[in-house]
Amino acid sequence: MRLALILEYDGSQFHGWQIQPGLRTVQSVVEEALAEMMGEPVRARASGRTDAGVHALGQVMHCDVARDIPPRNVMMGLNSLLPPDVRIMECRAASDDFHAQYHAVGKLYRYEILNRFQPTALSRDRVWHIRQPLDDEAMRLGCSFLIGKRDFASFKSAGDDGTTIRDLRRLDIVRDQDKLTLTFEADGFLKHMVRNLTGALVEVGLGRLAPDDIKVILESHSRSSTPRKAPPQGLTLVEVFY
Amino acid sequence: MRLALILEYDGSQFHGWQIQPGLRTVQSVVEEALAEMMGEPVRARASGRTDAGVHALGQVMHCDVARDIPPRNVMMGLNSLLPPDVRIMECRAASDDFHAQYHAVGKLYRYEILNRFQPTALSRDRVWHIRQPLDDEAMRLGCSFLIGKRDFASFKSAGDDGTTIRDLRRLDIVRDQDKLTLTFEADGFLKHMVRNLTGALVEVGLGRLAPDDIKVILESHSRSSTPRKAPPQGLTLVEVFY
Repeated sequence: MRLALILEYDGSQFHGWQIQPGLRTVQSVVEEALAEMMGEPVRARASGRTDAGVHALGQVMHCDVARDIPPRNVMMGLNSLLPPDVRIMECRAASDDFHAQYHAVGKLYRYEILNRFQPTALSRDRVWHIRQPLDDEAMRLGCSFLIGKRDFASFKSAGDDGTTIRDLRRLDIVRDQDKLTLTFEADGFLKHMVRNLTGALVEVGLGRLAPDDIKVILESHSRSSTPRKAPPQGLTLVEVFY
Repeated sequence: MRLALILEYDGSQFHGWQIQPGLRTVQSVVEEALAEMMGEPVRARASGRTDAGVHALGQVMHCDVARDIPPRNVMMGLNSLLPPDVRIMECRAASDDFHAQYHAVGKLYRYEILNRFQPTALSRDRVWHIRQPLDDEAMRLGCSFLIGKRDFASFKSAGDDGTTIRDLRRLDIVRDQDKLTLTFEADGFLKHMVRNLTGALVEVGLGRLAPDDIKVILESHSRSSTPRKAPPQGLTLVEVFY
């Protein structure tokens, strides 16, 4: 039986999603819990990897299990076996050909910035803290060059092959006092694309780049002039669309 | 020179504010950082203790230091010495008779509840997770019996002596989808008073108590019929007034 699961996790104590020898990853703790419950090894396939420190409110994965346990009971059983920084939000029976990665038609990410002079203790693992005032209106102008179906080669990271064209359906920036929330929705994202875009937009917000420079970087199709990527802890995978 | 400081801390890895032998407390890490900076022992006096697991966005403390260091530099120096779950938000010179505890004329606390079926990984140290739907309108009716200058003996915890009369100036409940935020402002709070009040209001929200029962419990002046107190992780000391 194929199961589809929605996961929430706090990425701060994980070396990302994917199994790596000797490191604590989300995939490894989920597969351990599944193996304990099912009495045999079970492979967990996610919609995509998340980096170390990146969070998820709605990561999707699938797995195949031999035991005929009602999905709701799988969810409750896993939640009692998993460490507190991973929780199953939903578990449903899926068709045998459902694939969490290949069938995804879109994803929504959120990036949170705390923009104030003072540091933060309570949000340290959840936001990118930026002391200097950010001009969010300039950042929005920068966003306008990014929305739509474009070649995002300038905003990928090394090691991501294949087409670099993505359809960025939504990119908005909302300021609530000292908190800036960037929301990204696309048919898919290149490796580190959200963090690379956020890093560039923050340069605009700081006045180190003009909004138009985003267009120049985008059209260069080259990573050489792309500013440094934003740190992982501000990023959350909110939803995967099928 | 007497200094007044405002602190933010994540209470999840602390055994509360007050120094206790062999335990990690906020006071102990702050005093260690002060001692390292000043080259001599320095006593930190807070506006009041917070329990293990309780957070602060605006705890206030004072201390006396012999070295003549500009307060802004004290702040920056402490922030480089403190662990990441405590941060100094402000540091100012205070008059020699300023006392963080005795001069406080009011405090504002916030209590956050996550009210949904699914558990949470990302907010596990920040909210009280309650699965059953809470009737926040009934809870607001319960609040109406508590606001004002009253004898809160029913809502104290053992070990708190002295007068039990407090002026609860504000108590409101705001629902934002599955998040309930309770805000409490008073001239002062008895030990565990916010958590005891929250515990009772949640019983009303669950339908186990009627809103009127809050009045009955309050007027009994006895802790015997008071429901269990709310857990610490949903509570944050937001502001201290002088």
